[in-house]
Amino acid sequence: MTIAVYPGSFDPVTNGHIDIATRASKLFDKIIIAVFDTPSKKLVFTTEERVELATKAVDDLSNVKVVAFSGLIIHFARQVNAKVMIRGLRMSADFEREFEMAMMNKKLDPDLELICFMASQDYQFLSSSLLKEVASLQGNINDLVPEFVVKAIKRRVLTEM
Amino acid sequence: MTIAVYPGSFDPVTNGHIDIATRASKLFDKIIIAVFDTPSKKLVFTTEERVELATKAVDDLSNVKVVAFSGLIIHFARQVNAKVMIRGLRMSADFEREFEMAMMNKKLDPDLELICFMASQDYQFLSSSLLKEVASLQGNINDLVPEFVVKAIKRRVLTEM
Amino acid sequence: MTIAVYPGSFDPVTNGHIDIATRASKLFDKIIIAVFDTPSKKLVFTTEERVELATKAVDDLSNVKVVAFSGLIIHFARQVNAKVMIRGLRMSADFEREFEMAMMNKKLDPDLELICFMASQDYQFLSSSLLKEVASLQGNINDLVPEFVVKAIKRRVLTEM
Amino acid sequence: MTIAVYPGSFDPVTNGHIDIATRASKLFDKIIIAVFDTPSKKLVFTTEERVELATKAVDDLSNVKVVAFSGLIIHFARQVNAKVMIRGLRMSADFEREFEMAMMNKKLDPDLELICFMASQDYQFLSSSLLKEVASLQGNINDLVPEFVVKAIKRRVLTEM
Amino acid sequence: MTIAVYPGSFDPVTNGHIDIATRASKLFDKIIIAVFDTPSKKLVFTTEERVELATKAVDDLSNVKVVAFSGLIIHFARQVNAKVMIRGLRMSADFEREFEMAMMNKKLDPDLELICFMASQDYQFLSSSLLKEVASLQGNINDLVPEFVVKAIKRRVLTEM
Amino acid sequence: MTIAVYPGSFDPVTNGHIDIATRASKLFDKIIIAVFDTPSKKLVFTTEERVELATKAVDDLSNVKVVAFSGLIIHFARQVNAKVMIRGLRMSADFEREFEMAMMNKKLDPDLELICFMASQDYQFLSSSLLKEVASLQGNINDLVPEFVVKAIKRRVLTEM
Repeated sequence: MTIAVYPGSFDPVTNGHIDIATRASKLFDKIIIAVFDTPSKKLVFTTEERVELATKAVDDLSNVKVVAFSGLIIHFARQVNAKVMIRGLRMSADFEREFEMAMMNKKLDPDLELICFMASQDYQFLSSSLLKEVASLQGNINDLVPEFVVKAIKRRVLTEM
Repeated sequence: MTIAVYPGSFDPVTNGHIDIATRASKLFDKIIIAVFDTPSKKLVFTTEERVELATKAVDDLSNVKVVAFSGLIIHFARQVNAKVMIRGLRMSADFEREFEMAMMNKKLDPDLELICFMASQDYQFLSSSLLKEVASLQGNINDLVPEFVVKAIKRRVLTEM
Repeated sequence: MTIAVYPGSFDPVTNGHIDIATRASKLFDKIIIAVFDTPSKKLVFTTEERVELATKAVDDLSNVKVVAFSGLIIHFARQVNAKVMIRGLRMSADFEREFEMAMMNKKLDPDLELICFMASQDYQFLSSSLLKEVASLQGNINDLVPEFVVKAIKRRVLTEM
Repeated sequence: MTIAVYPGSFDPVTNGHIDIATRASKLFDKIIIAVFDTPSKKLVFTTEERVELATKAVDDLSNVKVVAFSGLIIHFARQVNAKVMIRGLRMSADFEREFEMAMMNKKLDPDLELICFMASQDYQFLSSSLLKEVASLQGNINDLVPEFVVKAIKRRVLTEM
Repeated sequence: MTIAVYPGSFDPVTNGHIDIATRASKLFDKIIIAVFDTPSKKLVFTTEERVELATKAVDDLSNVKVVAFSGLIIHFARQVNAKVMIRGLRMSADFEREFEMAMMNKKLDPDLELICFMASQDYQFLSSSLLKEVASLQGNINDLVPEFVVKAIKRRVLTEM
Repeated sequence: MTIAVYPGSFDPVTNGHIDIATRASKLFDKIIIAVFDTPSKKLVFTTEERVELATKAVDDLSNVKVVAFSGLIIHFARQVNAKVMIRGLRMSADFEREFEMAMMNKKLDPDLELICFMASQDYQFLSSSLLKEVASLQGNINDLVPEFVVKAIKRRVLTEM
């Protein structure tokens, strides 16, 4: 059985993330969306909220589950017996950063295989940070996240940011 | 009549911004430099100061005016009946970010047309942030901003940063 | 009256080109699609054919016309009294080459203003060369070019390449 | 059973290709290295020779085989029931081209999943074209390809280029 | 005698920095590693600690010394009679930022020559910031910094971050 | 005595090349401009002509000389006892290609040190290929190459291309 981890902040989960998780769920036996448990003040949602939103978002994918993790992703991957790590690549991504992290992870654990899925064209330019910026300025984000995330982000962003 | 908005932080306005505004003023009937009204602690000048400096900088361009705005630029553009949004592109710019914002704005308002002017060769490597860094370290910025901006930035940067 | 030239090889015209021309036609009084008249063996269509296909493609845009040109675009622009030159920018474009050409043109004629339109999301990854490659391998290009271009390219590419 | 195709020119196969194939062979049930059958004069080896060298290179990987293909890779993938396509990404790669091809393939066949493996650090800067250039100038390529490829490329490159 | 300055934050010095300093020490008569004296809260080590670690790291290079500096690097370079400034370039570097700073420095002092050394392949993906992130998550950084830096960073990062 | 080689096609030498050679001549004892001796049909000038033009261009730099070379640059460097290789970097350069070649050369000869000079702002966007394209279309290239090169390139380009 091939288990894959899909790590990130997911603050909040977007349609882009859901697309990657859906596609990955067809290739591997089990996908674990690993939500980085960080108390960073830069995030809009708490770890619990981020896990909850992501869980709801992949509700209909039976072989995908969501858990929080802390520490290095390679340690978490080992714990859950994952032999694959998944990343979504967007054309507007920071490739340099992606490669740096990938090479570092490879050095730390040569046995964990990293594979990248290219974002679908509709999500090539969608990032969580831009999404939050737009939402905080009262822009329409209906096409970019599930409806329950629209509600959550509006509630949070509009009152707190 | 074609109205164009030219949004940004303008903290402070540089010769690069003035160059773009001047060139745009020859193509469109009216240019509105839209200064983002943000209380960000990262900025050196207040919104009022940024508007004032930019206004002085385009003083001799009769069809260019400067106003502050808050919220999404697409909403502001609609308010002032602009059908064009202007961006200056520098070779050392963050294209990924530019495209992300452009695609997001297009989604939010397909009718607002974004056009980019490439920075003139002399200003290809001039950014407001680098300018402020140099000024704070007492470097010479005379060729990069108008004289009254040199004075303003020196007064501010040297005392507060 | 502001006249804009939109130069290129247009071998052949794609939906991406048509999109740029359509958007530009709303901002400027007259758009001249300038088809580079080159006997290059690398092209699939002759200059006459490229002009013909592009002409048909912008048939319904009353202020857009198509002509062939040779020599430097700045010379052609001067001949037709254009004060603007248009380029479409794709995220997958060769920005370095774009900037090189832009800076060179600026040096050759500082009065010709270059402006860039960012490709719409649907056409961000569409290039004439990839299109021809796909067509030559019998891939479906129906969404990427007008129907009469599909026919022309199939006739040409499948028999000659 | 998950079958993956790994397409390319493989002119000739390098240690970088072998590394990707080896890693992929651990994740999927069967890997088909698909050598593009093209009469291009730019290639150094014939299709038969490229298939032969690649076959020898993955000799010890029981679930990897090598075949030639022509036409679109999506058509070939469908023929062999592959649901995954593999690409190796190098930091020094042409990402724009990669994304263009990926988006085009996705449009042509949304069901074929593309995944990318990042090259190992030792092979980040290794390309077949640079390899051939070095070999043609009598540089040492022993660390970059298997020994039998060294011999093949020397025989070919030194006599014909 | 040609003196070269090699400026940076060195928070902390890595094997990548040591590699550049070693290579530079063979080309120029004297290398001054110039540690930027900044009270930034983002740094992990104090200026004194950063100087101390770097000094220890280049202990065996007789023509390399380490000093702290504040203000513009061009002013410091002039003070120490350096006519060369050194930068290490990594593939995963921010070239735009590098060029911006280089052009700015050139404008501020045309006589100070900037030269870049490309990072060795082993250090192409090593940055101080990623290093600290890994260390703070208890990852193994033994291959990336000298042993005494491993100790220093562990002591600091694990207690304070 | 430190000898540096500065390799390239120099087809033809431009003001950008001359700028790099001039700056390098102040840092090293001797600079050898190494003109790649290639019968490539893509070049406009013969090896002899390229050597001649470059020689004339650096006539007033007493420690710079020009020679043709064939084979690998590392072999040539060893022959002439050079311990440094020089490259000019332009913002609009192909960094990927630069890094690929640098890493390959490092592998082939770890003792030959590569250093990069960043092009001066005026020459950031100047390439030999764009220059020839402009000249062939009768554009003005007076600011970009010495006068005798203008004459040579016009004679050649206008009659033969």
